[in-house]
Amino acid sequence: VVPDARLSSQLAFLIEADRLKGVERRNHVLGGERRENSGEHSWHLALFALVLAEHSDDTINLRRVITMLLLHDIVEIDAGDTFVYDTVGKKDQDERERLAADRLFGLLPNDQCDELRALWDEFEAAHTADARFAKAVDRLQPMLLNHAAAGSSWHEHSITSDMILDVNRPIAGGSSVLWDAAQVYVDDAVTRGFVPQ
Amino acid sequence: VVPDARLSSQLAFLIEADRLKGVERRNHVLGGERRENSGEHSWHLALFALVLAEHSDDTINLRRVITMLLLHDIVEIDAGDTFVYDTVGKKDQDERERLAADRLFGLLPNDQCDELRALWDEFEAAHTADARFAKAVDRLQPMLLNHAAAGSSWHEHSITSDMILDVNRPIAGGSSVLWDAAQVYVDDAVTRGFVPQ
Repeated sequence: VVPDARLSSQLAFLIEADRLKGVERRNHVLGGERRENSGEHSWHLALFALVLAEHSDDTINLRRVITMLLLHDIVEIDAGDTFVYDTVGKKDQDERERLAADRLFGLLPNDQCDELRALWDEFEAAHTADARFAKAVDRLQPMLLNHAAAGSSWHEHSITSDMILDVNRPIAGGSSVLWDAAQVYVDDAVTRGFVPQ
Repeated sequence: VVPDARLSSQLAFLIEADRLKGVERRNHVLGGERRENSGEHSWHLALFALVLAEHSDDTINLRRVITMLLLHDIVEIDAGDTFVYDTVGKKDQDERERLAADRLFGLLPNDQCDELRALWDEFEAAHTADARFAKAVDRLQPMLLNHAAAGSSWHEHSITSDMILDVNRPIAGGSSVLWDAAQVYVDDAVTRGFVPQ
């Protein structure tokens, strides 16, 4: 619709991104039967990072962390959400997501494609302090929602407390404070009978 | 659940924020009958700001803009969404939202309550360059979604092109480039019969 090619590419990317609101995750939003979608999940993670940044073990650049979190799931528009406990789906997840990143970031002008793709790659690799804190938050949020929902999606998928601790260990890579808290939540979930030992 | 009072307040705020995913807006997500909720809307706006920042008329601090956008609708958890064309609902909107801000930001530790509340107030006042650009993006996104959905929520509420231009004029306060683009979209909507002249 707009004549300028650069702005037109930017708006095409933003309109395409709308589809992330239609990608369903396994966990539920609170106070409802509805599953969370990856768009609202991404908003919630950015808010988590904003409020919990002080608990990062290493110095982080919050703007970079939040940008990673806004972008990290966008590949699910093509590749779908892979449940964190799904060992079969995880096998080709990297390849599916890389192809999706090529197409989706490729909608942007070249300079922005390169810049945002680099942040997405950095998140995936999880080697930097910013990426490690972003990953920590990406694990903590669904765990807290599951706890607040009395373990609804843990029940559905027969998840045990050992599996929760194993899958959520990346929290320890970003924040020892949040990892300690996560373990308190898992203990509490066992005590209350939300998950088996 | 966690013993530390500060972390406990932060997590209480983040869990309460989940409810924003249950607040329905008037416009729809694309490719579905479902209305957009304010959580996923906030994510989409942050992405808009990230990609379109270069079009701001004034120099902006993108981290502040994105933080405002992540927070701007959180008061709707108590106050509900007020349709931008709803002149009756708008009358007591400010008072309802202020009370909501008192309660919700009040869940946070004092220093974070003050910091984030100040950003929310700045967004509402729309006097600074950061707030004006955030407001511009908050108008542009639903307009583009409505255009992409062939004017679905404009039809429902008998909105005309003059009303669209009037309500979306805050876009001009943040970006002349985006305001020019918005007018092209409205002209196109008229040409295609999405809205009456």
